[in-house]
Amino acid sequence: MSRRYSYLGPSGTFTEAALLQMPDAEAAERIPAASVLSALSMVDQDQVDGAVVPIENSVEGGVSATVDAISGAANLQIVAEALVPISFVLASRHPVPLGMVETVATHSHAWAQVRRWAEANVPGAEYVPASSTAAAAHGLLAEAPVADAAVCAPLVAEQLGLHVVASHIEDVAGALTRFVLVTKPAVAPQHTGADKTTVMIPLPEDRPGALMEILEHFTTRGVNICRIESRPTGSAMGDYFFSMDLEGHIDEARVAAALSGVHRIAPNTRFLGSYPRADSKPQQVPEDVSEAAFSAAKTWVDSLRGR
Amino acid sequence: MSRRYSYLGPSGTFTEAALLQMPDAEAAERIPAASVLSALSMVDQDQVDGAVVPIENSVEGGVSATVDAISGAANLQIVAEALVPISFVLASRHPVPLGMVETVATHSHAWAQVRRWAEANVPGAEYVPASSTAAAAHGLLAEAPVADAAVCAPLVAEQLGLHVVASHIEDVAGALTRFVLVTKPAVAPQHTGADKTTVMIPLPEDRPGALMEILEHFTTRGVNICRIESRPTGSAMGDYFFSMDLEGHIDEARVAAALSGVHRIAPNTRFLGSYPRADSKPQQVPEDVSEAAFSAAKTWVDSLRGR
Amino acid sequence: MSRRYSYLGPSGTFTEAALLQMPDAEAAERIPAASVLSALSMVDQDQVDGAVVPIENSVEGGVSATVDAISGAANLQIVAEALVPISFVLASRHPVPLGMVETVATHSHAWAQVRRWAEANVPGAEYVPASSTAAAAHGLLAEAPVADAAVCAPLVAEQLGLHVVASHIEDVAGALTRFVLVTKPAVAPQHTGADKTTVMIPLPEDRPGALMEILEHFTTRGVNICRIESRPTGSAMGDYFFSMDLEGHIDEARVAAALSGVHRIAPNTRFLGSYPRADSKPQQVPEDVSEAAFSAAKTWVDSLRGR
Amino acid sequence: MSRRYSYLGPSGTFTEAALLQMPDAEAAERIPAASVLSALSMVDQDQVDGAVVPIENSVEGGVSATVDAISGAANLQIVAEALVPISFVLASRHPVPLGMVETVATHSHAWAQVRRWAEANVPGAEYVPASSTAAAAHGLLAEAPVADAAVCAPLVAEQLGLHVVASHIEDVAGALTRFVLVTKPAVAPQHTGADKTTVMIPLPEDRPGALMEILEHFTTRGVNICRIESRPTGSAMGDYFFSMDLEGHIDEARVAAALSGVHRIAPNTRFLGSYPRADSKPQQVPEDVSEAAFSAAKTWVDSLRGR
Repeated sequence: MSRRYSYLGPSGTFTEAALLQMPDAEAAERIPAASVLSALSMVDQDQVDGAVVPIENSVEGGVSATVDAISGAANLQIVAEALVPISFVLASRHPVPLGMVETVATHSHAWAQVRRWAEANVPGAEYVPASSTAAAAHGLLAEAPVADAAVCAPLVAEQLGLHVVASHIEDVAGALTRFVLVTKPAVAPQHTGADKTTVMIPLPEDRPGALMEILEHFTTRGVNICRIESRPTGSAMGDYFFSMDLEGHIDEARVAAALSGVHRIAPNTRFLGSYPRADSKPQQVPEDVSEAAFSAAKTWVDSLRGR
Repeated sequence: MSRRYSYLGPSGTFTEAALLQMPDAEAAERIPAASVLSALSMVDQDQVDGAVVPIENSVEGGVSATVDAISGAANLQIVAEALVPISFVLASRHPVPLGMVETVATHSHAWAQVRRWAEANVPGAEYVPASSTAAAAHGLLAEAPVADAAVCAPLVAEQLGLHVVASHIEDVAGALTRFVLVTKPAVAPQHTGADKTTVMIPLPEDRPGALMEILEHFTTRGVNICRIESRPTGSAMGDYFFSMDLEGHIDEARVAAALSGVHRIAPNTRFLGSYPRADSKPQQVPEDVSEAAFSAAKTWVDSLRGR
Repeated sequence: MSRRYSYLGPSGTFTEAALLQMPDAEAAERIPAASVLSALSMVDQDQVDGAVVPIENSVEGGVSATVDAISGAANLQIVAEALVPISFVLASRHPVPLGMVETVATHSHAWAQVRRWAEANVPGAEYVPASSTAAAAHGLLAEAPVADAAVCAPLVAEQLGLHVVASHIEDVAGALTRFVLVTKPAVAPQHTGADKTTVMIPLPEDRPGALMEILEHFTTRGVNICRIESRPTGSAMGDYFFSMDLEGHIDEARVAAALSGVHRIAPNTRFLGSYPRADSKPQQVPEDVSEAAFSAAKTWVDSLRGR
Repeated sequence: MSRRYSYLGPSGTFTEAALLQMPDAEAAERIPAASVLSALSMVDQDQVDGAVVPIENSVEGGVSATVDAISGAANLQIVAEALVPISFVLASRHPVPLGMVETVATHSHAWAQVRRWAEANVPGAEYVPASSTAAAAHGLLAEAPVADAAVCAPLVAEQLGLHVVASHIEDVAGALTRFVLVTKPAVAPQHTGADKTTVMIPLPEDRPGALMEILEHFTTRGVNICRIESRPTGSAMGDYFFSMDLEGHIDEARVAAALSGVHRIAPNTRFLGSYPRADSKPQQVPEDVSEAAFSAAKTWVDSLRGR
């Protein structure tokens, strides 16, 4: 039976483009969801095998929602990540010259990212809000089209057979959005030597040094932090948790030792997954935190206690 | 002449509600902008005295955009903050029973935040995307209204004289969004004893310990970090800066000393402002980092060097 | 068969007083040695079961020698410590009034410690050097006595039946000297809850931060350092090792974890023993480094790796 | 008028050899003192311009006494250091073959350091204690000589015109002892780029992390610690101070900043002097703690506070 994955829809979003990068995705059934939360809740309720959601720097939002939702759930684990280039096209149903485009539909965040291009190239065009870039593209095919053209991902233009009026219209070239594949808790994917680990660490106290005590546990084990974000835990601003991505895999002694230390001062720390890096960038592990160094240290201490 | 402030519009957004909390705001002219970037650029071009934009946890987005825009600008400074409760109403042009609402307009993020209420109370209603909650409210007054009702801030419903069908419909009660008032660089507002300082620190190298070296400069001066966020500096994911809010004011010796230390290892650090906390929570300053302790230490070292 | 212990002699030194405080010492055979090194070498060559030597603050020297000798030996372990009050008497063979004492024998360090008393009470007396306070006392009984009186420990005056002319003549009251009992490597004495651990840590590099990296391993496990001394490793000043006493026992998880971490960055670290504190001062162990916290953290990490 | 220096006497000790290395020493008047304390007290009472005393690794003791005496005095400052090779000769009044030497006088510590040589070369010789190596040498010239030969410094043998029976007889070759020149408080000798600074830091509390908090102040300013020793402050073992030698000079911004930070947490910290290193080893100062970096940071923070 083929796998089923939910994603932040509708069909044709950057999130679906991310899903298509995941292992075995071509053969999987892809189920659009109306929001990050509903995509994740389909995992929780066993309606799908996994969900793909944006976790950093997204066009259509959901990033804070994703961090909060995954961090808050007892029942979810990240098993893969993907990086998708954020490039927009201006698409229309039928071929149309740029000068004739009078209305442009898209998500408000996408509109903000093509603003300078739009002012230079379709200066008189009116902006029509849409709930996503893909919804804007789909809206071109409606009986009463929402606009003359849509700003959307190349994927949806291709899926719907739209005409591409202009491409690479984003004001800042080269942006990437990071997406993750989330499943029910499972054995982490195998250690590859180029891995990340995501954790959620509730701050024990709001005082100078609390964060540093936590970081020391990573630093003394040579574990690099590649993303950190403090997030309020709830309604009253003032209680925080840290959402962090670490370089390394829970199956490495240094990562296990660091998390073990963090657990002692923040026992409600949650492990949200170890998984291969999308960029496959291999890791330099200093000798003093190598598997060999941990193993030699353990042997030594065991011998002291036994003798 | 009265002051002029831009804000993330249109009229009636949560951002305008934040602006109304700022000092002297009632008498100021309030100018809606189409995006965070355009609100800030009006400051840069001297069209307004300041701009109010969301910086944390926002309904209508702009948060990462705000952090990145302020951090990247050489020419902006935060001088005040405001906390706005995020509470939604369902508003209609004319009184209408809940059961009759068939279409609901709002921003996609707002829709995500009232989803459970909507499923329970207007289960059949169709969602109509809008570029902001306020735009949805304004759309009710159009010749061809966009929807039967809008999910929006209480402020805009009141401003437009709309009928409130239901209030406090947010799924999670008590959420607050943080907004800041941004001006051209200026002398920081006076030290109140309950202040924050915002800085942008480019990470010198992507290695274990770099963040900790920076934090040590704060910890050894008893300066608490109340928000931290790592952000990619540009297109290639991998180079980072840290956006941080610190407890304390640049006019305090301990904050000045900490920033001085950070500047040595990250000379491109940017100071984005010291300003009173919106919650007025007074600060406990440990004795060893008090003004008196810094002053005594300076006197001592000066005497050693002079003798 | 009774146990045999060597000690820094001759008979009647403060070191013998320390030996008499050790468990089962009364029944043991006590063998004076001419130097710290020769006392320790008797252990190495299995001529005795253990050696008692001064390790801190000693009257008759040997402290640096002791630290260096124990640190350098592959084959020695500290199993107990004792604290001896350093109090001197002025002793003579026959009763003699203070005013009649014209020559005083003692070790040069002891003479330095009673200097003010001597200037006030036997101002005209000539100082006669001796190789130890006990040797000075023994010298009073020689056919040709070395001096009219000796400054020595109360123990030797009593052992030799000398007349005590004046007691408590030390210029600074209340000083204690610390002695240790050294044996061949063995299972450490049982954990009592008021223990010390002595280690020798070669500094990996002579650079800022190297010592701090080591200390972090103790601090993050709540292990207090109660003695630290940097010592040159050999002839060329510049390469160092640290001799340290830690609060805690190798059988505690927090001590084992700290030493394990230190071993990774300084693999030639030597464990010199865990033993009960002479002052029996019980230890406060913070909750985050309790046995329970270590055990819970291990269970958690094991579960993450296994699932 | 020529300068006057006291030193740990008598004439011919290793300490006098150290004094002869000090600037302008040849022309100075050299006054032997009976103990470290009395040499230092001559400075305090303005009887001399300075005192030379051993501070590390000494043959004739006085090291702990020196550290404690200088640390405890309000009125003393280290202005220079010297390193003296510890090499012993066996000296006699008249030429004598080795096999004829039946008694050997010296200080007990020196005897310990030539023990292996003595066992091999003068196995039957009887040891005669002396209060110093130089006193042993002088004793050879007495009407009733104390011994056939003395183990002493080459300097005293030369000064007294003794016969050198054997030289380089120390068991461990290459040892150096460190001596310091102590004066009344004064402007520190000029910064040379190869300097040391000696401080005494009372431990604020006997708890894990207190020492690390202090070290952090040095590490974050790139100030290396080349000697550290914890010393009990008085009678009750348990309250400590740290005696430390730092690389660098009080006139360097990084050293001044580090000491300023330490003063805040340990206000009773004492500065005992900045002075040129005896080994003239030049110092690498990382860029982030260079004078330029401190100056740039100060300019930046001043501009933030002024604007």
